[in-house]
Amino acid sequence: MKTAVYRKEHFNAAHRLYNPNWSFEENEAYFGKCNNPNFHGHNYELIVKVIGETDPATGYVVDMKWLSKLIKEKVLVKFDHKNLNLDTEEFATLNPTAENIARIIWELLRSDIDAKYDLKVLLYETDRNYVEYPCE
Amino acid sequence: MKTAVYRKEHFNAAHRLYNPNWSFEENEAYFGKCNNPNFHGHNYELIVKVIGETDPATGYVVDMKWLSKLIKEKVLVKFDHKNLNLDTEEFATLNPTAENIARIIWELLRSDIDAKYDLKVLLYETDRNYVEYPCE
Amino acid sequence: MKTAVYRKEHFNAAHRLYNPNWSFEENEAYFGKCNNPNFHGHNYELIVKVIGETDPATGYVVDMKWLSKLIKEKVLVKFDHKNLNLDTEEFATLNPTAENIARIIWELLRSDIDAKYDLKVLLYETDRNYVEYPCE
Amino acid sequence: MKTAVYRKEHFNAAHRLYNPNWSFEENEAYFGKCNNPNFHGHNYELIVKVIGETDPATGYVVDMKWLSKLIKEKVLVKFDHKNLNLDTEEFATLNPTAENIARIIWELLRSDIDAKYDLKVLLYETDRNYVEYPCE
Amino acid sequence: MKTAVYRKEHFNAAHRLYNPNWSFEENEAYFGKCNNPNFHGHNYELIVKVIGETDPATGYVVDMKWLSKLIKEKVLVKFDHKNLNLDTEEFATLNPTAENIARIIWELLRSDIDAKYDLKVLLYETDRNYVEYPCE
Amino acid sequence: MKTAVYRKEHFNAAHRLYNPNWSFEENEAYFGKCNNPNFHGHNYELIVKVIGETDPATGYVVDMKWLSKLIKEKVLVKFDHKNLNLDTEEFATLNPTAENIARIIWELLRSDIDAKYDLKVLLYETDRNYVEYPCE
Repeated sequence: MKTAVYRKEHFNAAHRLYNPNWSFEENEAYFGKCNNPNFHGHNYELIVKVIGETDPATGYVVDMKWLSKLIKEKVLVKFDHKNLNLDTEEFATLNPTAENIARIIWELLRSDIDAKYDLKVLLYETDRNYVEYPCE
Repeated sequence: MKTAVYRKEHFNAAHRLYNPNWSFEENEAYFGKCNNPNFHGHNYELIVKVIGETDPATGYVVDMKWLSKLIKEKVLVKFDHKNLNLDTEEFATLNPTAENIARIIWELLRSDIDAKYDLKVLLYETDRNYVEYPCE
Repeated sequence: MKTAVYRKEHFNAAHRLYNPNWSFEENEAYFGKCNNPNFHGHNYELIVKVIGETDPATGYVVDMKWLSKLIKEKVLVKFDHKNLNLDTEEFATLNPTAENIARIIWELLRSDIDAKYDLKVLLYETDRNYVEYPCE
Repeated sequence: MKTAVYRKEHFNAAHRLYNPNWSFEENEAYFGKCNNPNFHGHNYELIVKVIGETDPATGYVVDMKWLSKLIKEKVLVKFDHKNLNLDTEEFATLNPTAENIARIIWELLRSDIDAKYDLKVLLYETDRNYVEYPCE
Repeated sequence: MKTAVYRKEHFNAAHRLYNPNWSFEENEAYFGKCNNPNFHGHNYELIVKVIGETDPATGYVVDMKWLSKLIKEKVLVKFDHKNLNLDTEEFATLNPTAENIARIIWELLRSDIDAKYDLKVLLYETDRNYVEYPCE
Repeated sequence: MKTAVYRKEHFNAAHRLYNPNWSFEENEAYFGKCNNPNFHGHNYELIVKVIGETDPATGYVVDMKWLSKLIKEKVLVKFDHKNLNLDTEEFATLNPTAENIARIIWELLRSDIDAKYDLKVLLYETDRNYVEYPCE
């Protein structure tokens, strides 16, 4: 039977939610306060879940120090203390909703984690709103 | 691949756990302090999980403002600051255990959420006791 | 210099807030949902703070096992899984607001804790509403 | 003896930390990532503490519904989902550090709370960095 | 449809992570600070998840008082306030990583929980590192 | 008026509580499970509070990056992933209770923080037991 390991990290970022193909009024009606043209921001809590077999030699699924370092190098350097809309290529044209941020983080990490492991990303935008990707 | 979104709300309620077909002694033996005839109460933390495709136009699975409003209108107005046994039709004859409350909340919400989405309910009775419905 | 030690316990209780000298309408106007005649309830988190000198022989201000046992015997047996209005003498005529509950708990504990120690009580009614007694 | 009551609210905002009288390099050296010209952001947790006598008629120091409404009207409408540097007059020229935000919030609330009460503001910028104003 | 119930308990323990077949230098290189020969320790948060049908007579999947007692008798008496490497037979030769501790706890509980229920164990070593067993 | 700033850090350590001048039975009777000769351990949450004037040029009481670095250099390198009784000079003969650890941390930090600031240390041994030093 497999085991899941979870590693929690965090980053702080500014963002604005809007669809550039919609009018300002349409964006205001749909996204409300999140459409503020001058941005707002969040403390994002990021949880990365890796599922696989425990290695009998180490007792680890994967080394959490390695996983933490990977998240820092592939995700946090891009997003921490940044404006997601203005400072990142990933969200230059993609709306930085929690759903999209979680999927992008999954894509940033997937190729560095051996294919024998399953990977999931949980992202807390606030303690009342959070997402998980992928979810069957 | 699908994404799950989670929305957390809370309500405060009184309840008593007992089976009306059992004697007081049988209820006392099984439900212990939870059988207090004068009720006790909890701060219930409610997490509603909706699983579906992210809409490319919005970047949302569902709008969390809409989901929060739905939970308030269909669940919180019925249960918040209420006595579950005395003030609600749902628990007039159904024992208001966390398991039953979670299932009832799922039923209260299910018909208002498009069938293309999966729905799950997590309910914290305390931070040490909580339930999830449904769970395969 | 003195040290403070804190011990956290919890209890679950039902209550109703109202002033028996007011009309139902006056209570409804002032206490709102908390005036539900059938009661509602909370998970109360209780933190007891004892301030004193650290004993060089033990390294303790007071033994936390003793303090935990004292709180259980003097407070939790009275209030846990109870209806504060109906099941306790302390709140038979006293409105069980968080302010009053915290003061009563302080009075229940004070005489069992040596006068050389200062005593404070923090009481969380929810994670958004809490009180501290006494507070200069 | 007096009692303290605490009310927790939250807001999400973008900000940039810098001193306009310093060069970009000086700001970068001192404020580091927080000096990002495109802003970053936080989930601010705000706790307002009011200290006073408990009213025997109500059992309240102050009505928490009133306090919550006051915080929303005087603080959250100004700061929630805003860019503190660009969208507020308070931080148009004042550096929006947690220390300064807490003091400004105290000033926004003080005149609406009767002088017989003491007032303190706690502000969590992250769960690892927070401030309290005033503090003797 | 089935329901999951979760019960949270905790224990405090010392441990050292190393592979006795490796040299000290190899263990130091792989396990880093966790290889301290004099041990370090953790507050372990343990969550036991039981999945099954809700009993119509009780409204419970399983009685949480029974589940809590079972965890105390089968797990906590063995591990709480112990040195996992020196004081337990389970980890006399098995590396006490979170992955291995979670699996051992699952094995300690499985035979006492009716086969009609599914069982999962979550174990928090810190609030940033945690594991789940089993996980498909 | 002054402002307090708080910085939270954490460390994981093993310890044993006992008085070397007492018999094993006396230690067992007083310290109970905490007297395990093979040690147990904790995730210690450490909060350092610095009280002073906000600098008008920076908007900071003290720079939190500097404070975090100071705590790491003066406290965490000594205590993190260590056995407090065996691996540290501070607790070679001093009982490593939370009270004593908090006082030692205060002494380790005090001389590096300008005398114009007040300093307090909060230390969580578990989320139910914690201490503050000094406390008037």
